[in-house]
Amino acid sequence: MKVALKKLSIITERLLREEIIELIRRKGATGFTFAKVEGQGSRGVRASEWEGRNLKFEVIVSTETADAILTEIADRYFENYAVIAWITSVEVLRGHKFVAP
Amino acid sequence: MKVALKKLSIITERLLREEIIELIRRKGATGFTFAKVEGQGSRGVRASEWEGRNLKFEVIVSTETADAILTEIADRYFENYAVIAWITSVEVLRGHKFVAP
Amino acid sequence: MKVALKKLSIITERLLREEIIELIRRKGATGFTFAKVEGQGSRGVRASEWEGRNLKFEVIVSTETADAILTEIADRYFENYAVIAWITSVEVLRGHKFVAP
Repeated sequence: MKVALKKLSIITERLLREEIIELIRRKGATGFTFAKVEGQGSRGVRASEWEGRNLKFEVIVSTETADAILTEIADRYFENYAVIAWITSVEVLRGHKFVAP
Repeated sequence: MKVALKKLSIITERLLREEIIELIRRKGATGFTFAKVEGQGSRGVRASEWEGRNLKFEVIVSTETADAILTEIADRYFENYAVIAWITSVEVLRGHKFVAP
Repeated sequence: MKVALKKLSIITERLLREEIIELIRRKGATGFTFAKVEGQGSRGVRASEWEGRNLKFEVIVSTETADAILTEIADRYFENYAVIAWITSVEVLRGHKFVAP
C-alpha cells in the first residue's frame, strides 16, 4: 500500500554540507542523498546569490519532519547564505523505511 | 495541453544498474535518466543501509506503469538491497512521448 | 508561511545548454540549477532520441512562468531535439525569492 510522504529538496553551498547533514539527522530523517549541481541566481534578487557548484540534498520524511527541517533551514541560512529549499508530495511503498522508530 | 503522468524515482546501489534498466524497459517506459548520488542511511533502521555512491533513476510513465515498476522493485529488492523509490505527480506537454505505442 | 509554486524540470542535450539558460532567464526565473545525467530513450518512439550524457535543469517559478517556459521549449525543441520536460507542484518558504521583483 502506498503511503503519502514529503520529499524535501535543499540546494546549498558546499561549505554547509556537514551542517545540513547534522540538521537532517537531528530532525529524525532515516536517510538522505546529495549530488553536485551547478547553479546561478540573479544578482538583482538578493545579495548572497549562489553561483557555481552546489549540493542538492533530498530527503523523504513525514510532513512534520519536512516542515521542521525547512523552518530551521530558513531561519538559519536564508538571510546570509545562498540556500533554497522546497517540499514535494510523494508516494512510497513501505513507509516505515522513512520514519525513525 | 498538459497531461498528468507520474515520475518514479529510484535510489539504488550501483550494482543493480543493469537490472533496474531491464525492469524499467520491460514495464514499458520509453526512456529514463540516471545520475550518481551520494547517500547515507541510518544503521538503526534496517540492516542493508545504503552508503556512499549510488544511482538515482528517474522515469516518467503512466500511473499504471509507475505502480508496476514500484511493486516489482519493492518485491525484488527492498528486503535485501539498499533501494528506495517514490512516485511524484507531474504534468507534461505531448504525453505521447512517454507512453509506448 | 509556505507558498505553492512550480518546479520545471528539463532534460536536454548538452549542446542546448546556453539556449536553455537564456530562455529560462528571459522568462523571468530568478535562478536555476543543472546537473549531468545519463539517459536512454527508446528508438521505437521517435527519431531524435536522447542517448548518453545530458543535462537536467531545475527551476522554481510561478505557474505562469513554468507554463511559458514549457510551451516555448516544446515549440522550439520537441520536434528536432531530444528534450523532455515536466512540471511538479512544490511548496516553498519565502516565495519572493523565486519571483523577479
